[in-house]
Amino acid sequence: MPAAPHMTPEELRLWGERFLEWVAGYHERIESYPVLSRVRPGEVAAGLPQSPPAEPEGFDTVLEDLDQVVVPGLTHWQAPGFFAFFPTPATGPAILGDLLSSGLGVQGMLWASSPACTELETRVMDWLVELCGLPRRFRSEGAGGGVIQDSASSSALCALVAARERALAAAGGASLADLVIYTSEHAHSSIYKSARIAGFGADRIRFVGGAAAYAMSVEALADAVGADRAAGLVPCAVVATAGTTSSLAFDPVARLAALARDEGMWIHVDGALAGAAAVCPEFRFVNRGLGAVDSYCFNPHKWLLTNLDCTAMWVADRKALTDALSVTPEYLRNPATEQGTVIDYRDWQVPLGRRFRSLKLWLVLRWYGATGLQAHIRSGVSWAQRFAGWVSEHPDFDLAAPAPLNLVCFRHRAGDEANRRILAELNDSGSFYLTHTVLDGHYTLRLSVGTVATRAHHVEAAWEAIAEAAAKL
Amino acid sequence: MPAAPHMTPEELRLWGERFLEWVAGYHERIESYPVLSRVRPGEVAAGLPQSPPAEPEGFDTVLEDLDQVVVPGLTHWQAPGFFAFFPTPATGPAILGDLLSSGLGVQGMLWASSPACTELETRVMDWLVELCGLPRRFRSEGAGGGVIQDSASSSALCALVAARERALAAAGGASLADLVIYTSEHAHSSIYKSARIAGFGADRIRFVGGAAAYAMSVEALADAVGADRAAGLVPCAVVATAGTTSSLAFDPVARLAALARDEGMWIHVDGALAGAAAVCPEFRFVNRGLGAVDSYCFNPHKWLLTNLDCTAMWVADRKALTDALSVTPEYLRNPATEQGTVIDYRDWQVPLGRRFRSLKLWLVLRWYGATGLQAHIRSGVSWAQRFAGWVSEHPDFDLAAPAPLNLVCFRHRAGDEANRRILAELNDSGSFYLTHTVLDGHYTLRLSVGTVATRAHHVEAAWEAIAEAAAKL
Repeated sequence: MPAAPHMTPEELRLWGERFLEWVAGYHERIESYPVLSRVRPGEVAAGLPQSPPAEPEGFDTVLEDLDQVVVPGLTHWQAPGFFAFFPTPATGPAILGDLLSSGLGVQGMLWASSPACTELETRVMDWLVELCGLPRRFRSEGAGGGVIQDSASSSALCALVAARERALAAAGGASLADLVIYTSEHAHSSIYKSARIAGFGADRIRFVGGAAAYAMSVEALADAVGADRAAGLVPCAVVATAGTTSSLAFDPVARLAALARDEGMWIHVDGALAGAAAVCPEFRFVNRGLGAVDSYCFNPHKWLLTNLDCTAMWVADRKALTDALSVTPEYLRNPATEQGTVIDYRDWQVPLGRRFRSLKLWLVLRWYGATGLQAHIRSGVSWAQRFAGWVSEHPDFDLAAPAPLNLVCFRHRAGDEANRRILAELNDSGSFYLTHTVLDGHYTLRLSVGTVATRAHHVEAAWEAIAEAAAKL
Repeated sequence: MPAAPHMTPEELRLWGERFLEWVAGYHERIESYPVLSRVRPGEVAAGLPQSPPAEPEGFDTVLEDLDQVVVPGLTHWQAPGFFAFFPTPATGPAILGDLLSSGLGVQGMLWASSPACTELETRVMDWLVELCGLPRRFRSEGAGGGVIQDSASSSALCALVAARERALAAAGGASLADLVIYTSEHAHSSIYKSARIAGFGADRIRFVGGAAAYAMSVEALADAVGADRAAGLVPCAVVATAGTTSSLAFDPVARLAALARDEGMWIHVDGALAGAAAVCPEFRFVNRGLGAVDSYCFNPHKWLLTNLDCTAMWVADRKALTDALSVTPEYLRNPATEQGTVIDYRDWQVPLGRRFRSLKLWLVLRWYGATGLQAHIRSGVSWAQRFAGWVSEHPDFDLAAPAPLNLVCFRHRAGDEANRRILAELNDSGSFYLTHTVLDGHYTLRLSVGTVATRAHHVEAAWEAIAEAAAKL
């Protein structure tokens, strides 16, 4: 029986060079594309055959299709004028780390299934604790430890499952239907989604609001917890945010953690977007209160120069996590696991399988060093701050929320429709892509800085385009 | 404010060539490494600095560390003597598809956030339906559709959450604590884990056994469902397996699906390992019964020449999935979504963010064509069948389960300890890595074929080594 027509290492070298050249060229050409794709629904699909190829195809046609079918259908997250959602930087070191991971093709579900995949991950997660000035209790030498998840969503899910199991074990006789989750009305939608996936009823998820600047009110939380206890329910967990997606609002984590401790609740903190700022000592306010929380995550794949997917999650007590997520069938039993001397990361996450994701984080941390990471964060903050200054000085625009880092929420005083028109004009231009949110009932524009290709002049140009669009209202 | 020391496209070309050469060389050298890593716990970590670099480092040292610290800590999943767990082939086309995905760095959470990322995925998932002879109801033109998940674990989780919500909506007044999940005692551990994550109590997950050859008994399932109904509980979902991880056992999907329909239960089928075989018409028995199931998945990252992570999941009614998993905050609202004319894949999965994973599947399907994929499946089956023949003919060995495809479960007649010694001797040799399971209480060896580098002579050599180890008992 002959083997399949596998690509040989020699062919991989040849095609690899072609694809690498294509990727490098894409980054060189990126400013020539409209940032926001202009295709209509179905247009990309119409350029693809209805049926799969029966016989092997040459890869020259793949490269043609990339340019002609795929690229027009892309919204370019790496474009310098991409100020939408949040940055997710595809840097060279991250691309090369992914290349290694893909090429090695090892599976790190168990320590034994490729020990380096586990030990490098544990080490770079410890490095991040040091780089970001995070609490020592998150380091792997003690009871805690870090793990790379695919997303902040999955991190919240794992935290909530651990919280749920801990609460059920502690509250004899309570059932899942009795447990209550608290978060802010400004928390990311993934918190609600994770809680629902974990089986919490929609009527057991409380959105606590109340404080200034879109932060969670500790008093309102205390009231909600008290009311639930009075009703015979069991407060289970609080999910706080250090820098919301909508407006970069910070919940008062230290006070929330104190209340959570008093009430026996798990507290998870989602620092998805803002957490990366902690590589700069002057921005360590993003870490406030983390010394007393049960779990925390932020996304190197947002602002820390690592491409999707790479979420850094830590727990103070890894046993609480693995107790909730460990199931060992016979075919996964092995001496290293039985001896209990190793980490098996499958017990820290939803899936069994896992890629060697720490390679890209390792390469990013080594290429940039602490000083390089800091330079990226500082440039993003500096440019966003200048933008916030222009907004404040303009007679027709207001800041809609504090802008302590790289996200600026702002709006024209003429109201929602005017802001919608400004946004449409900017996004139709092809040079920029911004997205919106709603704050206090008002349609609000967001400018999020952090893409690798962005320089000061792109932020300036965005502001000029906004001011021009406003002048035409 | 200066920009950070980003890697320029020119530097990416230069370093990319070095890393690509390293990966190609790794595949050329792979037979020179011991398949199973020989490091002790902590040995890899000891080779890594305690602290992250303060300043940027040259990448020459990274390449040195790869060879000296990382590689000795790898268990080589791409080695030709890797017969453990299941194959997860890092083929050239998949590596290059990942390179494109990493390089483009787009995020496909919404259709609008990069339309090509969604439309290419929908199309290649439709291609797979055709390639594998799957039911038309899984195609995207109708009410169903396919999505790429990170794992069969996450696919089961999404299916069970959809099943849970559908059951709660249908059974007025029932609560999650009333719902029951049924699976086989031979199902993958991820089924139990997913059910637990989704909030089903350990006492609401039934392991139905009973039939020959490690399959689920329809009669035993009917009895369990009847007993639960009599106890006032609500049967919610059945998870069947088309080819178990342990022994490649097939549950009687058609009959289970009929029972599920009669009882108003969701039926999900996990074909993680064996599903790929359906690219060959002669192996389409793996699809039996899928025409009447609610959801199905198999892993192209197991036997279909695509590297981790790439699980293909389909649903017959996508609305049931998105009803359970859709949460839309203001900052994700956009015209395409509001018009309802597009797929937003974030509503088909746990995380919000998603990489452009269809690129690698697209490249694999185009490089190999249907004929190339078939050749890979056929060679794996053929070599495994020859191996199974040698086992049967040997006076001291028995097949421990039917071996219809690429997995052979077998054991020496001298008992558990003898089989443990044979396995240890093989794995210590450095040339092979096999894992074990337990069937009918007996320690059983597994040989799983499907790695790209494996040829007939590697399988022969494994058998010779096994026979030699047995002769020394």
